[in-house]
Amino acid sequence: MKRKVTIVEVGMRDGLQSVESFIPTATKLSFLKNLYAAGVRRIEVTSVVSKTAVPQLADAAEIIKVSNSFNNLDAQVLVPKVNHAEVALQAGAKHLAFVVSVSGEHNQSNVRQSPSQSVAEYAKIVSILPQGIKLRLNLATAFDCPFTGPVSVEKTLAILDDLIPLAADSEIALCDTTGRVTPDHVDQLYRAVQQRYPAIDKWAFHGHDTYGLGLANVYSAWKAGVNIFDASFAGLGGCPFAPGTTGNVATEDVLYMFEQMRVCTEIDLDAFMKVSKQARALPGAQTGGRVQLALERACLTS
Amino acid sequence: MKRKVTIVEVGMRDGLQSVESFIPTATKLSFLKNLYAAGVRRIEVTSVVSKTAVPQLADAAEIIKVSNSFNNLDAQVLVPKVNHAEVALQAGAKHLAFVVSVSGEHNQSNVRQSPSQSVAEYAKIVSILPQGIKLRLNLATAFDCPFTGPVSVEKTLAILDDLIPLAADSEIALCDTTGRVTPDHVDQLYRAVQQRYPAIDKWAFHGHDTYGLGLANVYSAWKAGVNIFDASFAGLGGCPFAPGTTGNVATEDVLYMFEQMRVCTEIDLDAFMKVSKQARALPGAQTGGRVQLALERACLTS
Repeated sequence: MKRKVTIVEVGMRDGLQSVESFIPTATKLSFLKNLYAAGVRRIEVTSVVSKTAVPQLADAAEIIKVSNSFNNLDAQVLVPKVNHAEVALQAGAKHLAFVVSVSGEHNQSNVRQSPSQSVAEYAKIVSILPQGIKLRLNLATAFDCPFTGPVSVEKTLAILDDLIPLAADSEIALCDTTGRVTPDHVDQLYRAVQQRYPAIDKWAFHGHDTYGLGLANVYSAWKAGVNIFDASFAGLGGCPFAPGTTGNVATEDVLYMFEQMRVCTEIDLDAFMKVSKQARALPGAQTGGRVQLALERACLTS
Repeated sequence: MKRKVTIVEVGMRDGLQSVESFIPTATKLSFLKNLYAAGVRRIEVTSVVSKTAVPQLADAAEIIKVSNSFNNLDAQVLVPKVNHAEVALQAGAKHLAFVVSVSGEHNQSNVRQSPSQSVAEYAKIVSILPQGIKLRLNLATAFDCPFTGPVSVEKTLAILDDLIPLAADSEIALCDTTGRVTPDHVDQLYRAVQQRYPAIDKWAFHGHDTYGLGLANVYSAWKAGVNIFDASFAGLGGCPFAPGTTGNVATEDVLYMFEQMRVCTEIDLDAFMKVSKQARALPGAQTGGRVQLALERACLTS
């Protein structure tokens, strides 16, 4: 059984937003170009959010415009509220990603709304979505909350019961916001959602590597049937609203694992390494991942 | 189903042997004492090997003597050849660990013998083993070789066919020497050995975290039924005869994962962290793992 997985590169959004000093738009666009050259065809290119909250992404309109010039690139744009969605659509976004947190405490910290307000916001976005524009649902703290700890499967299913009927063909990413989830819990939740919502066929996993569990959780999700994985070049990132977290699982680590497992990613690891190296050189970047260093060391010694 | 796992702390051997400058015996003994205080009851305390090859472990006899003074501590001593086994037994070792590599190239580099010579060496050790002395078999490059790449399940089973009849009650550790194995291969090999050798009930996994796959592989082995895991405090280590490798999977990362999974380890993570911190402070130590930093950061920010 030869499976193919889709990597959604989130470094340009989840990664770069964690870098304090503004990265010139030209640098961001060079990441975009190099990612595309490495074969990456799904990229969360930016987010339309309050420029005060995330000044790093203030150039979203320009990024969206340029991302539309790449043939066959599925460029998604994160939008927390309907007014952001409108701005993103005006700028030409073809794929929106909405985020809501299962945990009330985290949702308040992240988007200053209660989860039920965010559910209503999601309904509004669905209602204005033009034909042909794709929508993804990111469910933050689907496993664990930085403020209140483990989130039960039941609690996550309860909010999905409200969200799923609003847009039955959305892709849904279950997000381990803290990096504290363990692979057994990942397995349990994906099996539960697939059983409860058999019509949904696009489940994604978004994980962090803060506690070294990044690849363990990606593997566990894959074993449970997930084929879409968020990851960030050089393991860049971390949630500014989730204290203590570090970056997403590093894309090159995920690529390496799947390549070794003979699972197709359609991304060229060597070419990708150059992007990862470029990210490591960004001033103020907090990076992670292992594969880059391991392969460099292997080249030197064997 | 509440399971218990046994952690075999290998930092004092696999970890410390990677540190170039000699660590005073008193420092080593303080590690031993602190590990014991944290609840660790299985420790690979040292290795009796050529002092020229591994000068760091030249104080093996003293370490063995002191390790015998701890109540209920199962202290194992790595011995590559029968003459080393004799020295270890004379020094009072109660548990020997023998190592042989599936890969001829790696076995030659590691112990300067062919695998079949090492099988014969194992037979000799078994023949001189006094009653009541335990024996563990470490099968290096059971999955992958630093010189020749992936090792097939068939090749690993072939050498086990020769080794297992020699000592049917030994514990057997399958070792990922390079850190390049992926969790699917871990699963495949453990299922194969358990099916082929149903009488063997003590399988262990020894992994490295060079490519970030450490916990993914531990989890996969656990899912396949393995309950004994080698790990090194602070992720210290690497094989001096396997180019490009870094340390073992960090014990604190393994403890954290199992603790989050509510699997009992009988080790106190907080107390263990102090040992890990002590290891990080060793001059010349190459450390790894994520949990130490993540927990320190979490304390600072949340």
